[in-house]
Amino acid sequence: MAHYETDEPIYALATPYSPSALAVIRASGDGVISLLQPYFSGKIEKAESGRVLHGYINGTDGRHIDEVVVIKYGKGHGYTSEEAFEIMCHGSLPVIRQISALFEEIGIREALRGEFTYRAFMHGRMDLTQAEAVEEIVKARTGKGAGEALERLSGTILEEADKAKNEILEILASLEVQLDYGEDEIPEDWEFPSERVHAIRDRLAAIASTYRSSKLWTEGAVVVIAGRTNAGKSSLYNALLKENRAIVSPIEGTTRDYIESDAEIDGIPVRLFDTAGFRETEEAVEAEGIKRTESLMETADLIVYVIDPSSDDAAPEDPRVLTVYSRLDIVDKGKALSFSSVTGEGLDKVISAITGKLTAGLSEVAGVPVIDSERQRDKLLEASDSLGEAEKSMAFGFDVVAMYLQSALASLGELTGLVTGEDVLDKLFSSFCLGK
Amino acid sequence: MAHYETDEPIYALATPYSPSALAVIRASGDGVISLLQPYFSGKIEKAESGRVLHGYINGTDGRHIDEVVVIKYGKGHGYTSEEAFEIMCHGSLPVIRQISALFEEIGIREALRGEFTYRAFMHGRMDLTQAEAVEEIVKARTGKGAGEALERLSGTILEEADKAKNEILEILASLEVQLDYGEDEIPEDWEFPSERVHAIRDRLAAIASTYRSSKLWTEGAVVVIAGRTNAGKSSLYNALLKENRAIVSPIEGTTRDYIESDAEIDGIPVRLFDTAGFRETEEAVEAEGIKRTESLMETADLIVYVIDPSSDDAAPEDPRVLTVYSRLDIVDKGKALSFSSVTGEGLDKVISAITGKLTAGLSEVAGVPVIDSERQRDKLLEASDSLGEAEKSMAFGFDVVAMYLQSALASLGELTGLVTGEDVLDKLFSSFCLGK
Repeated sequence: MAHYETDEPIYALATPYSPSALAVIRASGDGVISLLQPYFSGKIEKAESGRVLHGYINGTDGRHIDEVVVIKYGKGHGYTSEEAFEIMCHGSLPVIRQISALFEEIGIREALRGEFTYRAFMHGRMDLTQAEAVEEIVKARTGKGAGEALERLSGTILEEADKAKNEILEILASLEVQLDYGEDEIPEDWEFPSERVHAIRDRLAAIASTYRSSKLWTEGAVVVIAGRTNAGKSSLYNALLKENRAIVSPIEGTTRDYIESDAEIDGIPVRLFDTAGFRETEEAVEAEGIKRTESLMETADLIVYVIDPSSDDAAPEDPRVLTVYSRLDIVDKGKALSFSSVTGEGLDKVISAITGKLTAGLSEVAGVPVIDSERQRDKLLEASDSLGEAEKSMAFGFDVVAMYLQSALASLGELTGLVTGEDVLDKLFSSFCLGK
Repeated sequence: MAHYETDEPIYALATPYSPSALAVIRASGDGVISLLQPYFSGKIEKAESGRVLHGYINGTDGRHIDEVVVIKYGKGHGYTSEEAFEIMCHGSLPVIRQISALFEEIGIREALRGEFTYRAFMHGRMDLTQAEAVEEIVKARTGKGAGEALERLSGTILEEADKAKNEILEILASLEVQLDYGEDEIPEDWEFPSERVHAIRDRLAAIASTYRSSKLWTEGAVVVIAGRTNAGKSSLYNALLKENRAIVSPIEGTTRDYIESDAEIDGIPVRLFDTAGFRETEEAVEAEGIKRTESLMETADLIVYVIDPSSDDAAPEDPRVLTVYSRLDIVDKGKALSFSSVTGEGLDKVISAITGKLTAGLSEVAGVPVIDSERQRDKLLEASDSLGEAEKSMAFGFDVVAMYLQSALASLGELTGLVTGEDVLDKLFSSFCLGK
């Protein structure tokens, strides 16, 4: 982080470095508009913030580099809250290289990863959970994941943390009032506000618990289709891919005995594996292939085990296994989950069974914001744990209870990265007795 | 082209479909702003053209899709000259997919390739040579190539074509004056303006001749390093790559007996090949490898033949061969082109010899705009040829001369794609005698 802490003007290519119609290069920092002006034909210094200017970007030798559109952001208006601009140039690699070279020449240096967002954070434009949400939107693989990240970007987690912090500060303040009596032990007429603290803890824990669910929606699940050879695995694999738009094209295994694809099944990103299949005779076993399938099954979140209804095969006993019978058009196993890749019958049921099993136990509580960061979950649980310890410490005196409450505040402060609590804490604790 | 000719609002992702900080989705067409308004929280209908608006894009279900910045372009202001807008959203694949889906839902269809530029052309925003320049900038591999394309985008070829057209029209008009005498033969006092026509022809031919040179700067050259094994080929290959920033990382040949890399040598994009090397003994010849190296040498624009100065090797006789001696630090061949990959001595001379040989005969005439399109070159040469035929046709009467002059105009019209000449021609030829 040390490299971030400068006032230097920075720039970065905000779009992929690949030929395309347009590319966007953004720059930020005090004085960055004046630095650009001599090399841009539009009157950007005089333009108002939020204005689009059309013109040429010129090199230091005066030659046109590209015909571009530039957006000016006055101080306080752009992403970083600093004076800034964005250049929309042709998505041409030499143009991008030349504009980058120009910037280096005129004293705008290339930004480090995340440096624009870091500056937005440093200037109070967003808290840490919002900063993380920016990256989470970009990395999201489904609309649901992007939508939840967008909610975090709007500050839902920050609000929750602030609410909890304020509650804890009030409890600390009520303790402080008692302190005026100069006593070291907790006064008898002070009762720990258990109900209030439980409510805070429940809320923090509920938000923390959304992490597992959100991980499913963003990182996705590994689903392995297993079963004997000719059980109908590949037909199911293809049917699932056909029904559910693949996000990327299938990557053929090169040295592996399985093929894999990315699909989105009812909004859940799924990495779907079709395995080589277990042979029925011992002699035909290809040791290496089976070993690979088995190790793949170990990492699976869900194993769809396909059985030919005319065979004597049975699915392995594993809580992750979903047993599915193929060839429904030939043999009807009644209530058992069956499908036919010929008629397509039963496929929708197989799909709901897959998503049902993947989301089982992942309750989504209405009104509770969803998180997608292990760091955020840990801070929320830390705060919740500290509150629990505070309650248990009543017997150890005021300073121990206060210490745990402060510790909860610190965790919430780390969650958002905002030190706003610190001055409040200073004020609060500066009134404490010396040596406390 | 038939699909292009509609008034439908269109949209396209203008940046690569790959996760990144930002993505730009543009839309164009009459009424496109009103179509967007219900799904964008910013007041875009009321905003002035060239304004940047910050807000949320919402789906038809009212949920936020993303927090974005939208640029409004009023009619006559944007790229296509139609009412248009550009959305800068997070470079998130699900966000891009959701905005695309929203557009399809509300009646903005995905644009065909080049459709935005086609509309810019149709609305007189640019001529064909400028439209081609847009693509040429994006595809350019060096700054020089991009810079030349940018000049074409500003209309240099269009200006040249217009200048030539006006000259030809004047000549036609002076012929027309003679026509008033009602004669079929060319009047004796009318002299073919040879000097004037030669000047036009020279100019058109000079522009056409830049194509070969521009092809070198944009498409680049194939340079093959050949020579016996251990002659020092790979050291030269590595030294050239090190000295000259590689554009893409080396692609290792998999089944081939050579490796290749892209480099930029003094601004020329070069595909550099290091070959397997000819063995010195007949026995050791690997037929297939040699065959491949030989076929590679056939396609080469330049063969750098490396010789160990202590050997008896001699370069093959081929006008494309540049003979270079290695190990200058050990043996000095005097005036011969030599280098040492140990000390680096002589490398700069080898580099200038390479670029010198690649550009030999490619004269760049100052003040002549450079083209990068075979189509444009053909139209320029067609026009020039027609002017030559016109001069030769004096004996065949007025109508033959006029026909060739018209043919030259038609070629120039096809060059720019502008039919502006047509009404002028109509006016001109409508005063001709009936049956002419």
